[in-house]
Amino acid sequence: MHRSEPLRYGYFGPQGTFTQMALASWLSEDQDALAAARPFGTVALGLDAVRSGEIDRVMVPIENSVEGGVSATLDALNSDNPLVIQGEVLVPITFVLAARSGTTRAAIRGVGSHSHAWPQVRGWMAAHLPDASYVPTLSTAAAAEALAAGDRAPYEAAVCAPMAAEVFGLEVLAEDIGDNASAVTRFVVVSRPGAVPAPTGSDKTTVVLYQHDNHPGGLMELLEQFAARGINLTRLESRPTGSGMGAYCFSIDFEGHVADERVGETLMSLRRVCADIRFHGSYRRADGRPVEPTRTTTDQAFEDARTWLHSLRA
Amino acid sequence: MHRSEPLRYGYFGPQGTFTQMALASWLSEDQDALAAARPFGTVALGLDAVRSGEIDRVMVPIENSVEGGVSATLDALNSDNPLVIQGEVLVPITFVLAARSGTTRAAIRGVGSHSHAWPQVRGWMAAHLPDASYVPTLSTAAAAEALAAGDRAPYEAAVCAPMAAEVFGLEVLAEDIGDNASAVTRFVVVSRPGAVPAPTGSDKTTVVLYQHDNHPGGLMELLEQFAARGINLTRLESRPTGSGMGAYCFSIDFEGHVADERVGETLMSLRRVCADIRFHGSYRRADGRPVEPTRTTTDQAFEDARTWLHSLRA
Amino acid sequence: MHRSEPLRYGYFGPQGTFTQMALASWLSEDQDALAAARPFGTVALGLDAVRSGEIDRVMVPIENSVEGGVSATLDALNSDNPLVIQGEVLVPITFVLAARSGTTRAAIRGVGSHSHAWPQVRGWMAAHLPDASYVPTLSTAAAAEALAAGDRAPYEAAVCAPMAAEVFGLEVLAEDIGDNASAVTRFVVVSRPGAVPAPTGSDKTTVVLYQHDNHPGGLMELLEQFAARGINLTRLESRPTGSGMGAYCFSIDFEGHVADERVGETLMSLRRVCADIRFHGSYRRADGRPVEPTRTTTDQAFEDARTWLHSLRA
Amino acid sequence: MHRSEPLRYGYFGPQGTFTQMALASWLSEDQDALAAARPFGTVALGLDAVRSGEIDRVMVPIENSVEGGVSATLDALNSDNPLVIQGEVLVPITFVLAARSGTTRAAIRGVGSHSHAWPQVRGWMAAHLPDASYVPTLSTAAAAEALAAGDRAPYEAAVCAPMAAEVFGLEVLAEDIGDNASAVTRFVVVSRPGAVPAPTGSDKTTVVLYQHDNHPGGLMELLEQFAARGINLTRLESRPTGSGMGAYCFSIDFEGHVADERVGETLMSLRRVCADIRFHGSYRRADGRPVEPTRTTTDQAFEDARTWLHSLRA
Repeated sequence: MHRSEPLRYGYFGPQGTFTQMALASWLSEDQDALAAARPFGTVALGLDAVRSGEIDRVMVPIENSVEGGVSATLDALNSDNPLVIQGEVLVPITFVLAARSGTTRAAIRGVGSHSHAWPQVRGWMAAHLPDASYVPTLSTAAAAEALAAGDRAPYEAAVCAPMAAEVFGLEVLAEDIGDNASAVTRFVVVSRPGAVPAPTGSDKTTVVLYQHDNHPGGLMELLEQFAARGINLTRLESRPTGSGMGAYCFSIDFEGHVADERVGETLMSLRRVCADIRFHGSYRRADGRPVEPTRTTTDQAFEDARTWLHSLRA
Repeated sequence: MHRSEPLRYGYFGPQGTFTQMALASWLSEDQDALAAARPFGTVALGLDAVRSGEIDRVMVPIENSVEGGVSATLDALNSDNPLVIQGEVLVPITFVLAARSGTTRAAIRGVGSHSHAWPQVRGWMAAHLPDASYVPTLSTAAAAEALAAGDRAPYEAAVCAPMAAEVFGLEVLAEDIGDNASAVTRFVVVSRPGAVPAPTGSDKTTVVLYQHDNHPGGLMELLEQFAARGINLTRLESRPTGSGMGAYCFSIDFEGHVADERVGETLMSLRRVCADIRFHGSYRRADGRPVEPTRTTTDQAFEDARTWLHSLRA
Repeated sequence: MHRSEPLRYGYFGPQGTFTQMALASWLSEDQDALAAARPFGTVALGLDAVRSGEIDRVMVPIENSVEGGVSATLDALNSDNPLVIQGEVLVPITFVLAARSGTTRAAIRGVGSHSHAWPQVRGWMAAHLPDASYVPTLSTAAAAEALAAGDRAPYEAAVCAPMAAEVFGLEVLAEDIGDNASAVTRFVVVSRPGAVPAPTGSDKTTVVLYQHDNHPGGLMELLEQFAARGINLTRLESRPTGSGMGAYCFSIDFEGHVADERVGETLMSLRRVCADIRFHGSYRRADGRPVEPTRTTTDQAFEDARTWLHSLRA
Repeated sequence: MHRSEPLRYGYFGPQGTFTQMALASWLSEDQDALAAARPFGTVALGLDAVRSGEIDRVMVPIENSVEGGVSATLDALNSDNPLVIQGEVLVPITFVLAARSGTTRAAIRGVGSHSHAWPQVRGWMAAHLPDASYVPTLSTAAAAEALAAGDRAPYEAAVCAPMAAEVFGLEVLAEDIGDNASAVTRFVVVSRPGAVPAPTGSDKTTVVLYQHDNHPGGLMELLEQFAARGINLTRLESRPTGSGMGAYCFSIDFEGHVADERVGETLMSLRRVCADIRFHGSYRRADGRPVEPTRTTTDQAFEDARTWLHSLRA
């Protein structure tokens, strides 16, 4: 694709967040774009900047292996004008305990961090700082930033990424304090709708499904559409539609690309049986694992079946 | 369709069978074709005559509300070169006890009839002729014909259609001797493959499905293809494939026409997941009952979904 | 079980049928019982003799690898007072062409046999006696018996078991004339209800299921009861209930014994969701193949789950 | 149950939260217990206090009709020693904008509130205070409390419950500012395991299910266990197990009581097919809507089936 203008990027900031690390990974061969990328204080603000055309791409967290789906992202992605995912990045999550230079552990009465990070260091805190109280902040980096800014922060230490400690000049009191050494967060690059990235043989697709009526058994009917074409789901989350207690829609990632025959037929079926379906993009898997259709669900199998049907109808 | 030559008909005979009655019903406005129709001694011979081009259409029984599927028809239809069903006729089944003039009930020691008819009069026989033995014949009409032909038949009375008694000049000793007053047999008109009759809004389709491997749970997977598109089955029979004990294929009638979107997608899916599928025609239902797709399975719903998918892929 | 009286046996006769061969196999260690066994002219007569107490056990054919289920047996088993299956026997089917001594092939204009045997030799007949007409008889042995009895049989040769040719003193003109060398028929030993044979680890169970309403998708709901407990079906046949075209019940054989936990729960579920269910026995498989439950459907898994539920309710 | 000691209650506080309102509703006839109830700063602290025996019951939020499941509660409920739900309360959610006396809207640059409340007033804020920045707090009441405490809060107004404004002596600048007038939050009363509340005919049960392997299609197999017994789900949420990206368990509420036959069989089945299942209680529905089993899933239907099975096995 020819572009005279370079793409403008944003991320859920401030500097020093895991999201910035994800963007650095995504833009590893385009240091100019990375340097020009703008931080946004909330996920919703970043997505709105893409919607308005202020920027072209934004990197936001969508799923954490310990804390689950990022509701703010799921809901903001699905509201207002449609947005689509262009790609994903997986970032291992490592936490440090950081403080202003000279602070001792004994002096720590409060610890600031994002509410998604706190449960991930709960075990370490119970063992090493059992009396410290938790102070929620807008992000893990914001906890570090406020601490570095002066003495007004209502806590003496921050739980943040190593990068944030470095960016804001804090001292690292303890490293790798996450309870789950294999914790990883998944980030996605979001854009306005447009050309879908070409299939790579290792792709995912993201949709949101709304049921006609709200009978919970209805979820099974939707899942059968995937199972009937041998399609694996990699994430399923229920999100309230807001129309009342128990009224949910389903945010789903599944293996395959909208250009695949089996995915196309699945999407058409869902379009028929759902009250609404929103398509949030097909994109390359970060882990590069190939998606292998079964013998009965290859593009060739679909084409053979179509040829046969045409011969019957002729 | 322009035809210079009239169609040549046959039926499972001899004269006087219920099958001839079915053909008379089918050809009610074409007495010339009916008069020229040829009887065949077995279902297989009639179907072979269509295959060879000797005749164009043959009427054969396929299903009886008391006795079940007619194995000979199901198997012969499915063997060798493919044949298709052009239409169906339902005929209420009424049996009479017929004998040569002057025969009294007391003189009846044996009763001839077809093996499908005998179980349908078993109750009447037990009540009125408990000591009579059963003698199987090639058809109910053949029982009457042999009786009329002379004194060599090893029985003194025949269980047959009223028409057969009349055709062969036998005396009716008892009418309506069937145990089940609502008994009905379904007949089908079979031809070589060619143009499928146009959809009427009240159609059926007949297929035979072969599983890849013979795990019986596999039937459920096939049935799900119909259920997923809101398609009702009206007949399902397992027939051995001949390749070993427990190796079955499934002969199925279902509602809808091959030209319907939901039927097309179902057939394509079956083509993909089955080891083999044989198409035996789409044709108007004899009862004229309209087939109503659900809101999510109309042709319009399929077209809307396809349009939407194309917009995503564009 | 203590029995002062030996069991009285019967079989679908006459002498020389494959059914007698099956009984001989079943009673291989009880030659006295075999010698005393009575032939019955039809399956229904044999089953009635068990119902009335005239005999204790009857051997009847139930399923043929080429011709499918034996409707007469399935329907008679399921009518009137319940009967149960005590065991099964598999008999390879071998046909001979037999005639009175001195008959040449050239002299054969008609061939007598049972209607289930004829399709199994159709290929041989087309190749070697293409002009011979078929004459149906009550059984393959009856064809041989009538031929041996004199010159009144309306055919010159019989298709029957080798044993029948020997019993009735006929000459074998051709051996192994079956089109399918691996053809096999399954026979069952039927009794009045009573103690169920003990589980052997290689068992089958036979039931007939009636749906509440006649929506064909209903079959899928019934099959799910088996699938949900990892139970394989080995035979499924639809049989008309007689109450109208399209009204079917399902005759099913499946792996496992009524004493197995997974079978018990399946039967209870079917009892709840079916309009009616008839139990026709649990018995040892003729092939002795062990039935292996999955890890989640062993008796132990069921007992653990029950213990856990009791702890919750306590 | 005889108790010499009154039950000791706690709630997710501080005073003035919607959770305290829920507890007030639950204890409407026991003002002494309400007055003695202790607030806990986080859901996890409250649940831990029940686990340790410090208190007997704690009221916590579990599900919001706009924001979805409360992850902190779902995860804390499911970790460590098991806890069970004794009952539920539904509280309509009404937000006010509150500030220190004399504050004008024009003076508001920052607004403090809990992160679950903020998205629920986003529309009102965009319309009336588009330039105000959001400051997360531990709870909606904590936002009000800090504002009332002095001039150190980094915001000039709080979004909180009307009750909180009253408790902390703040002035209400705007009422009913929630975007969704029908928003409601569901709270649950949690205790240590013990006697399950008796069935009322209008009950719910809560479980967490873990799959053996992590194939997402596996969810369908679990849902089938409910569908097969006619049990409706009222909430389903996936939560990460923490063992890696894409490894989820499912938190589920469904209709019925552990004492119901259909629920007991469902739980036993899930126990067999799941890697693990945690039971979090059966309790009366807050809306009092009766749970009607279908004809085939009443306790009587199960008992009849069991009696029949016993007769077969006898």
